[in-house]
Amino acid sequence: MKIAVLPGDGIGPEIVAEAVKVLEVLELKFELESALVGGAAYDAHAHPLPESTLALARQSDAILFGAVGDWKYDQLERSLRPEQAILGLRKNLGLFANLRPAVCHAQLVGASSLRPELVAGLDILIVRELTGDIYFGQPRGRRTAIDGQFPGAEEAFDTMRYSRPEIERIAHVAFQAARKRSKKLTSVDKANVLETSQFWRDTLIGVHREYPDVELQHMYVDNAAMQLVKAPKSFDVLVTGNMFGDILSDEAATLTGSIGMLPSASLNSSQQGLYEPSHGSAPDIAGQGLANPLATILCTALMLRFSLNQEAAAQRIEAAVQQVLTQGLRTPDIHSEGTTRVGTAQMGDAVVKAL
Amino acid sequence: MKIAVLPGDGIGPEIVAEAVKVLEVLELKFELESALVGGAAYDAHAHPLPESTLALARQSDAILFGAVGDWKYDQLERSLRPEQAILGLRKNLGLFANLRPAVCHAQLVGASSLRPELVAGLDILIVRELTGDIYFGQPRGRRTAIDGQFPGAEEAFDTMRYSRPEIERIAHVAFQAARKRSKKLTSVDKANVLETSQFWRDTLIGVHREYPDVELQHMYVDNAAMQLVKAPKSFDVLVTGNMFGDILSDEAATLTGSIGMLPSASLNSSQQGLYEPSHGSAPDIAGQGLANPLATILCTALMLRFSLNQEAAAQRIEAAVQQVLTQGLRTPDIHSEGTTRVGTAQMGDAVVKAL
Ligand SMILES: CC(C)[C@H](C(=O)O)[C@@H](O)C(=O)O
Ligand SMILES: CC(C)[C@H](C(=O)O)[C@@H](O)C(=O)O
Repeated sequence: MKIAVLPGDGIGPEIVAEAVKVLEVLELKFELESALVGGAAYDAHAHPLPESTLALARQSDAILFGAVGDWKYDQLERSLRPEQAILGLRKNLGLFANLRPAVCHAQLVGASSLRPELVAGLDILIVRELTGDIYFGQPRGRRTAIDGQFPGAEEAFDTMRYSRPEIERIAHVAFQAARKRSKKLTSVDKANVLETSQFWRDTLIGVHREYPDVELQHMYVDNAAMQLVKAPKSFDVLVTGNMFGDILSDEAATLTGSIGMLPSASLNSSQQGLYEPSHGSAPDIAGQGLANPLATILCTALMLRFSLNQEAAAQRIEAAVQQVLTQGLRTPDIHSEGTTRVGTAQMGDAVVKAL
Repeated sequence: MKIAVLPGDGIGPEIVAEAVKVLEVLELKFELESALVGGAAYDAHAHPLPESTLALARQSDAILFGAVGDWKYDQLERSLRPEQAILGLRKNLGLFANLRPAVCHAQLVGASSLRPELVAGLDILIVRELTGDIYFGQPRGRRTAIDGQFPGAEEAFDTMRYSRPEIERIAHVAFQAARKRSKKLTSVDKANVLETSQFWRDTLIGVHREYPDVELQHMYVDNAAMQLVKAPKSFDVLVTGNMFGDILSDEAATLTGSIGMLPSASLNSSQQGLYEPSHGSAPDIAGQGLANPLATILCTALMLRFSLNQEAAAQRIEAAVQQVLTQGLRTPDIHSEGTTRVGTAQMGDAVVKAL
């Protein structure tokens, strides 16, 4: 078994270092190999996703990804910017199923923007399609408008599109996840406006026939954005397309108050997966030992569960993280009165010790 | 001056009736004329936006719109569903500028999902483009895919597109609004992924040259969805496209905890406007006198301000609404301990009395 380690930019290297500590202490049989990605790869190889990094990712069973991005790359043309690395990995490896849990740990209820009773016990799984939709749909570009409100004017355009098999495969992932949880699935679309969404909805209804034990509900994206704020615990598993999923998964993660705690998994049809924390590269605090490594450490648990078939080890890591929280250890992002403030490495060491 | 009154479905008729009471007590010189819209129009004329209703809207200086939609129309084909009326009015009247305030009234801080200190004093203005984007972009439909991940499969598609003049005119509306407020404008896009967004951003930067006194900030839509939850008061005026605006304006409205209090205005280039509450038709409570008429009453204030050039009357209405809140009157949606619970008509009457 091989794990590609891609620390990336900003706080990426320091949080990934702690996750690697955790993986190593488990003494399982796998090989770790590191490579540059994002801005760090651009600096060294003039490309955010060099061929060598992509080749390593392809050969690996799983990828541990830190974060990419830094203001200093903002002026680069789009195709060279750090985030292209993540889009390129998703596309090239066919990582169509993004699983993003939004969990509010009991110990961290106070860190949420929401009133405690609304988030205590929150546990949502967002299943976001990750290789289709308007993210990758062709054609796209700039041109002179030949119709619309201002024919003759310069315009830009993108194409939202989903084919039936693309929708079906993500629907199966979502229904199966729902089956293992509370058997309630909410599909989010904008079928009152978009053809793609109506097709999405029709296809979900078709796949639902294979999962009669799961309750399927449809919700418009604007309403979902509202209900997440108003009654987040009314959701269990939520499935949606790439664009709406981008927005709603970040909204849901933020509701928990501890995005520094949230891992994510992006899987293809052979369970090869990319694992990355839900938060970003936070260049403003990089290199200062302030970053919370727990999301990345929890990524290793998801990796062991989904790609490396080591459920027991996954649970050990999750239990160890619970233990350090219960001990009262907190990085600055989740620190509150009466708890013990620790840095990135101390937090990683505490998890290792708990293991 | 002529006002078209389109009550619509669900709670629409009862909330609009209260707003009409308020308009009438002002004894200003304008004519009110009512027409059916949405499901109510479908029932009578087999179309949610009959020719006669559209003609009335065209001839009017302003439109007072209640709400449309009811589950019983869910099975109709899309072009006949109630919400097509609102899309048709926007398109036919060229109502490209949607102004959606998200204000948290001091008296209602407790109704928010958010901790009080995060929303007390919240006052955001969302400027949403309303006649372009993927809502109306052609081509759209279903077809057999000729490329993409599954060539040969059935697929659906929509086109996101914006031309330079479409972006420029909404940008001017937003910069001018920002100039009258705190001179800070946040433009929301997804320029790291979408061509349309990069063009949006470039065009905003161009228009910004005419407003050197306003500070322009760009933010990705996923980050905006997060920051609205985390630090809503960090926003003042926010401008975005039709699709992102749909999601973010509903998220922001919900954060205030009192969507039943929030009016909206949709204007064209001759200041003709459609005014509707930010909430929906709530068929579950229709006809029971439970609905909050204040959003619709506040719509009449926006109407007087933007389309009828009666600023003094607009301010009188807003002051009257403040007064009934201070008196402790509350419809069920905003009711809390220690306040007086009233019904739809009682609330309307109280505003009339305060005037
Ligand atoms: C960096 C960006 C392209 C990416 C996305 O939009 O998918 C990110 O926001 C995410 O959600 O992983
Ligand atoms: C009813 C629907 C078509 C409409 C929209 O998406 O614009 C509504 O959600 C709104 O925001 O006014």
